Amino acid sequence: MTIRGEMLIGQQTVTGTQANIQAVNPATGEKLDPIYVGGSRAHVEQATELAETAYATYRETSLEERATFLETIASEIEAIGSELVERAMAETGLPQARIEGERGRTCGQLRLFASVVRAGEWLDVRIDPAMPDRQPMPRADLRQRHIALGPVAVFGASNFPLAFSVAGGDTASALAAGCPVVVKGHSAHPGTSELVGQAIQKAVKACHLPEGVFSLLFGAGNEIGQALVDDPRIQAVGFTGSRSGGMALMKTAQARPQPIPVYAEMSSINPVFILPAALKARGKELGEAFVGSLNMGAGQFCTNPGLVIAVKGPELDAFTEAAKGAVEASGAQTMLTPGIHSAYQGGVASLSGATKVREIARGQTGGDYQCQTGLFAASASDFLASKALQAEVFGASSLIVECADAAEVKRVAEQLEGQLTATLHMDDADLDAAKALLPTLERKAGRILANGWPTGVEVCHAMVHGGPFPATSDSRTTSVGSAAIHRFLRPVCYQALPEGLLPDALKEGNPLKVSRLVDGKREL
Amino acid sequence: MTIRGEMLIGQQTVTGTQANIQAVNPATGEKLDPIYVGGSRAHVEQATELAETAYATYRETSLEERATFLETIASEIEAIGSELVERAMAETGLPQARIEGERGRTCGQLRLFASVVRAGEWLDVRIDPAMPDRQPMPRADLRQRHIALGPVAVFGASNFPLAFSVAGGDTASALAAGCPVVVKGHSAHPGTSELVGQAIQKAVKACHLPEGVFSLLFGAGNEIGQALVDDPRIQAVGFTGSRSGGMALMKTAQARPQPIPVYAEMSSINPVFILPAALKARGKELGEAFVGSLNMGAGQFCTNPGLVIAVKGPELDAFTEAAKGAVEASGAQTMLTPGIHSAYQGGVASLSGATKVREIARGQTGGDYQCQTGLFAASASDFLASKALQAEVFGASSLIVECADAAEVKRVAEQLEGQLTATLHMDDADLDAAKALLPTLERKAGRILANGWPTGVEVCHAMVHGGPFPATSDSRTTSVGSAAIHRFLRPVCYQALPEGLLPDALKEGNPLKVSRLVDGKREL
Repeated sequence: MTIRGEMLIGQQTVTGTQANIQAVNPATGEKLDPIYVGGSRAHVEQATELAETAYATYRETSLEERATFLETIASEIEAIGSELVERAMAETGLPQARIEGERGRTCGQLRLFASVVRAGEWLDVRIDPAMPDRQPMPRADLRQRHIALGPVAVFGASNFPLAFSVAGGDTASALAAGCPVVVKGHSAHPGTSELVGQAIQKAVKACHLPEGVFSLLFGAGNEIGQALVDDPRIQAVGFTGSRSGGMALMKTAQARPQPIPVYAEMSSINPVFILPAALKARGKELGEAFVGSLNMGAGQFCTNPGLVIAVKGPELDAFTEAAKGAVEASGAQTMLTPGIHSAYQGGVASLSGATKVREIARGQTGGDYQCQTGLFAASASDFLASKALQAEVFGASSLIVECADAAEVKRVAEQLEGQLTATLHMDDADLDAAKALLPTLERKAGRILANGWPTGVEVCHAMVHGGPFPATSDSRTTSVGSAAIHRFLRPVCYQALPEGLLPDALKEGNPLKVSRLVDGKREL
Repeated sequence: MTIRGEMLIGQQTVTGTQANIQAVNPATGEKLDPIYVGGSRAHVEQATELAETAYATYRETSLEERATFLETIASEIEAIGSELVERAMAETGLPQARIEGERGRTCGQLRLFASVVRAGEWLDVRIDPAMPDRQPMPRADLRQRHIALGPVAVFGASNFPLAFSVAGGDTASALAAGCPVVVKGHSAHPGTSELVGQAIQKAVKACHLPEGVFSLLFGAGNEIGQALVDDPRIQAVGFTGSRSGGMALMKTAQARPQPIPVYAEMSSINPVFILPAALKARGKELGEAFVGSLNMGAGQFCTNPGLVIAVKGPELDAFTEAAKGAVEASGAQTMLTPGIHSAYQGGVASLSGATKVREIARGQTGGDYQCQTGLFAASASDFLASKALQAEVFGASSLIVECADAAEVKRVAEQLEGQLTATLHMDDADLDAAKALLPTLERKAGRILANGWPTGVEVCHAMVHGGPFPATSDSRTTSVGSAAIHRFLRPVCYQALPEGLLPDALKEGNPLKVSRLVDGKREL
């Protein structure tokens, strides 16, 4: 593969006409060649037109063809080899092991969706056979399957340059559903994006699919992204990024003549509740482990634990003391971009400056764009009185909320905004306390975990990486795991269609061998 | 039961404080007692506060408790007896057989949802067991179920005073999901609404459920509805009605600090494609049957066939001739309200007045609020050139679109807006023509039917009563059939929770005996 500094529209490479984009190595401040020239509205239209054309064919590819395509993408990404790892490291400041791990996750995710496509659960086949003799009215034969929504716009995230970017979860699940994808690459890692885009482009060709199944655009500002969401051919949007960015896309999508769904994963501070018995039994150990989670990827995880909630007292003091030591020992880590670093500095400064907030510890200082871990504390009453203390600080920063008692812990839980995760640290003796909190946490978060840390999101069938607003724009969905495919599908019912006109998924004899709901009864 | 002219808030009966509402018998023009006094914002808050309180308990009722509740509602509705039928007839002008049939459908629907609740497919249980020895990282135990979104606002429709109203599909599916419901009753049938509301109120009490599970409000204008959708406790909205009404609710829901989903079923003209061989073989028969469907319920069905598309020539002439005769023989039928009748008159007048439209036939004239069936024709090229000809005329009015050839039939299909249904009349020799149209129809409609008529929507598992915008606000869903429950649910993932903290649906040994996806494999 060669990095060319170009957009990929179908099988073409295209040079833009708008403002330049150039990646910066955040570890060195060095500008990375090549320069990418941003695309225009004409490029958006070219990509969406190709996607629209491809949709007709691609959505009806066989399960096997589509699964093979996803597997081919994974193989092509692996085939790029060390060039991809090196470029991603240079563009993000993330270490080699992390990038290699993320590449494994990305390819594993594509292969998971291949297996999901083959299994066919996503078709949600339902058959209600005809009842010609029913009184007073006969029933016609009724069959339901799900079909792809149409071309999907995907916005790559900065913090996972592979797993939530060009061939990340949104792209993999949309392609699995049968939707062509137009990606707006993140300006922080255009070279990584182009390399992965080329891998998808090769897979499209190798699998003899229509070229419009995939395109990759770049743009310096918001214009190209807004144009993409506004394009009448686009039928859904996947986005991972800031609350303001997600809200802007939601607004555009709703203002279209035909509104479309936006799946925006936006912000979360991932509260961690440490219940009394667990706190007493292992406050020190928890304090150290907490800082390990806090520092992962310089805190640049959507599931970073930005809030610790516990009852104050000597047990919490022991936790805080241990966390303090771990934070002070934390080496500075390079952040993804100068902009993210500057936002982090601003967020931490406003916590430091808040009169009701105590600074517990700061980590070691480092280079220009390095994150100096921050740990703060506030009383629950002050936290409850200040909405600002719930704002996400993207990076390794967390706030310990000290509660007077269990009732105040509950009040804090009740006042939280929607979250991706909520964590309970608990021992057997905490079971009743946990039971009392659980209903509130279920309303607030998409994933509830016990005795672990929210960072590290398993790609599997039961995962929910989603949650009530503002964690995401649509709490009914997940952006990680096999259920993410449902975001890009809609049901169609076929009534009394002759066998020759029925799609294979619905034919007599179940030729695709998929699980079906027949007269409301599950059949394997 | 006694009609009191009051709102039902929890177990209370409450007299409003705002503008009066009084039903009119559209068959006679007579005003029907009692007068209903509309509710205020304070009543909305009272109802939603009770709903919020009830949600905590109601969403975790056992499958059996919730199913029994739905069945009890059905029995209580049946127990009202002839009073309900007579009042519904008086308020809607619909005939006895239709109201009795609709009552059967409404109660059958509630019982279907009881069986759906018991079967537990809606929980979508997914289990990915722990893999403690996995390399390089162990996997935690991950389990997913779906939970109720929260209190739901339901707007009763005018055209099905039972099946799409107070205890209609939206209410039944929301209650089945575990969501308390606050209904804004339709002002055209307040007495019917109150009677059915009293039945639900009795069922709530008989089943020892928290009173806030159900409330029924009235309001003369839009204010109470807007306040309901704007209320922070409301988490989703079900609506069947006009496009402007649905769009207004969507706008309010999106403008909230926390946007919420709106399931609005709004408008559809339900194109019927008559393919050449079928047209040739039985044009006359089809023409007569078509008018039967057109006239059902005075054309006041969401799935009324408002558009017929075929290739012009002597075969289509025979169809049109037969339809003309049937229309001319059509007796006038009372419409639901004076307002609906006046909108119908306006719609038909603008078709009559359009220079490119030919009037084929009108039905017999009748009383003040009676619908005089209308049949019109236009060339496909004129249809393609005029967006106005795609506007829904609510009532028994339809337009025959005469196409030059199969290619023009396809162009007409491609230019259609989103629809609830699309119908194909076809013989064996039409199979290729049908195949060529099908992909377009799948993009345009939620249900595709062959050799039938779109009116008559089966309440079953495979039904899709939904479709792309503007047929509905959310093409990913259905408002009729068991899949309607999914609108009011969201997934929650439980990671490494101790058995004692897991909800029953996710416990080891599958105590609820529900179908589960284990490691991606379906288990019964």
